[in-house]
Amino acid sequence: MWGKRHDMIVHEVEPFNSEPPRGALAGQLLTPVDTFYTRNHGKVPELDPAEWSLRVDGLVERPVTFSLSALRRRFPEHSEIAVLQCAGNRRADLLKVADIPGEAPWGPAATANARWTGVRLADVLRDAGLLPEATHVEFVGADVSPEVDPPELFGGSIPRRKALADEVLLAWAMNDEPLAPVHGAPVRVVVPGYIGARSVKWVNRITALAHSSHNFFQARTYRMLPPQAERSAGRRGEGFELGLIAVNSDVLEPDDGSRVTAGPVRVTGYAFAGGDRTIARVDVSTDGGRSWWQAELGEQLSQWSWRHWSTTVEVPVGSVEVVVRAWDSSAAVQPESAAGAWNPKGYANNSWARITLDGVAG
Amino acid sequence: MWGKRHDMIVHEVEPFNSEPPRGALAGQLLTPVDTFYTRNHGKVPELDPAEWSLRVDGLVERPVTFSLSALRRRFPEHSEIAVLQCAGNRRADLLKVADIPGEAPWGPAATANARWTGVRLADVLRDAGLLPEATHVEFVGADVSPEVDPPELFGGSIPRRKALADEVLLAWAMNDEPLAPVHGAPVRVVVPGYIGARSVKWVNRITALAHSSHNFFQARTYRMLPPQAERSAGRRGEGFELGLIAVNSDVLEPDDGSRVTAGPVRVTGYAFAGGDRTIARVDVSTDGGRSWWQAELGEQLSQWSWRHWSTTVEVPVGSVEVVVRAWDSSAAVQPESAAGAWNPKGYANNSWARITLDGVAG
Repeated sequence: MWGKRHDMIVHEVEPFNSEPPRGALAGQLLTPVDTFYTRNHGKVPELDPAEWSLRVDGLVERPVTFSLSALRRRFPEHSEIAVLQCAGNRRADLLKVADIPGEAPWGPAATANARWTGVRLADVLRDAGLLPEATHVEFVGADVSPEVDPPELFGGSIPRRKALADEVLLAWAMNDEPLAPVHGAPVRVVVPGYIGARSVKWVNRITALAHSSHNFFQARTYRMLPPQAERSAGRRGEGFELGLIAVNSDVLEPDDGSRVTAGPVRVTGYAFAGGDRTIARVDVSTDGGRSWWQAELGEQLSQWSWRHWSTTVEVPVGSVEVVVRAWDSSAAVQPESAAGAWNPKGYANNSWARITLDGVAG
Repeated sequence: MWGKRHDMIVHEVEPFNSEPPRGALAGQLLTPVDTFYTRNHGKVPELDPAEWSLRVDGLVERPVTFSLSALRRRFPEHSEIAVLQCAGNRRADLLKVADIPGEAPWGPAATANARWTGVRLADVLRDAGLLPEATHVEFVGADVSPEVDPPELFGGSIPRRKALADEVLLAWAMNDEPLAPVHGAPVRVVVPGYIGARSVKWVNRITALAHSSHNFFQARTYRMLPPQAERSAGRRGEGFELGLIAVNSDVLEPDDGSRVTAGPVRVTGYAFAGGDRTIARVDVSTDGGRSWWQAELGEQLSQWSWRHWSTTVEVPVGSVEVVVRAWDSSAAVQPESAAGAWNPKGYANNSWARITLDGVAG
């Protein structure tokens, strides 16, 4: 049911990891469920919603366990439109700098935007009586990852301030449909503005902690290692943990390497910044970044949504490189160099986006 | 009383604009009041605290006016350690790219860190009954700026979400001393993580709005203009308004151009990121950014504080350029090029920091 789709790029079948061709994300601000990337670290758990339960414990006054129906009865329902973005999104551009063995070569479509519906994590935490000494909130899912020896449940944590923010949901619906198994059914966490790894799927335990999670996927991987570090996640706590997503953008249409009729060509793409930033400007260059013009920005559906952008590029006969950089509302701009962004696990590449178009006489 | 200090670099006497030499910020995480930069757009108002009042109006249920004693009586006192940073900090490095006439050539010390004490803006807004349709909160001070024709009171606004955040204060004390007139006595706004211009001094009016402020200093200046724009703030709303501060850093000691004894030299500096980011790593290079090592990070006094960093540079006999870049907790890194950061008003330069040391035989 959730298996390989003919129009998806499947990086791995077991665990299932796929993204659509970049063009499939163009033209619609909410990404259809079957076009949304999937990132898994283990076999997809097949959970019976009637059997599912959520344990809330750790540094809370009243540890509690909810069934799905109890969760839905007790707390008001909320929806948020939010991007999820894999920490490995745009890794393919880092691979042109130096090899990153053992990691999927994600293109620019390991990100997408959807409407999520569920209850607010903050409501659940307040109900349980989150204690003042809780500085992080950890989520653990039902999926077991064979990447760890011995195998470990997937999990991770976010800081208290974010955990109590209105936008963080325990979601059971995606684009107004019940969550699909591959996307975390019956319930997943959605942490808008954070790397996808923190939006833990198949969540069944929430633990308030006085430190960030010691789970493998927080303490030993999903970390920004210095360039000279060993690639393998060897030393616990090396580098710094990822969380918030920095300003980023890429082209959606035309595809990289397309042959187009020389003359004016419409180019579109996405731009996103996590946390308290929004996208303020997108610049386009055809002279390698010496001069820029501004793309037109599309609608901002929510604080947590991406923006699409579009512009017209005058394509000559021959090859032209289209370079794109986005600015967020803090005036942070994407850095130029993929070499400068390179890191041993290939995370968080937000260097300038580049595609080549081949103009042929019309 | 607040006039030119012998150890400050005075960019302008009337209005008074000054920063310390960079080295004066080293060695202490809280900046002494008389070392803290001052940025003014008009004559410093001399206000009698007994006469001062604060009007809260606009999109609130109950417009209200407070005397200073009433404000202090009604709301609990809070303190925050927070950086203020001028939007023009580090403009001097942009001036090496192209001239920016009419703007002060701020070095890297138009930023500093202090403990601020006052009441929470959120408490005052809730007391007045902030209406749901209020999307921005505007502050207006008592200072009149002759930069505008006709002269206008200085002001600006921040988004609702930030205005209701715990860290935004109406402050009457700085490092546990009553606020000095040049720093906004009797009461100023302190908006941690935002450009200094939003921390309005001598504030006497707070207005809840359904749009961001139309004040000259928000609608027509303190905006990121595209490189090709006219320098003068001509068109209302051109470019995008500044607010949050992006990841940044600079060297404090030794000074740029110092002669030092060749051999190991201790280099220190600051790094800061506004909003929901903190500093995660600081890298140092002596080969122009081809290779980097990590500086040691000092204490993080609060979410809104800077971090100091230090490292040892092996200085050869001859000239060496020390290059620094900071990473924030979203894995955003400072962009390389001051040319890429250049903008017609010279704001928000966060390109790599660079100093030159001249090593002489010991």
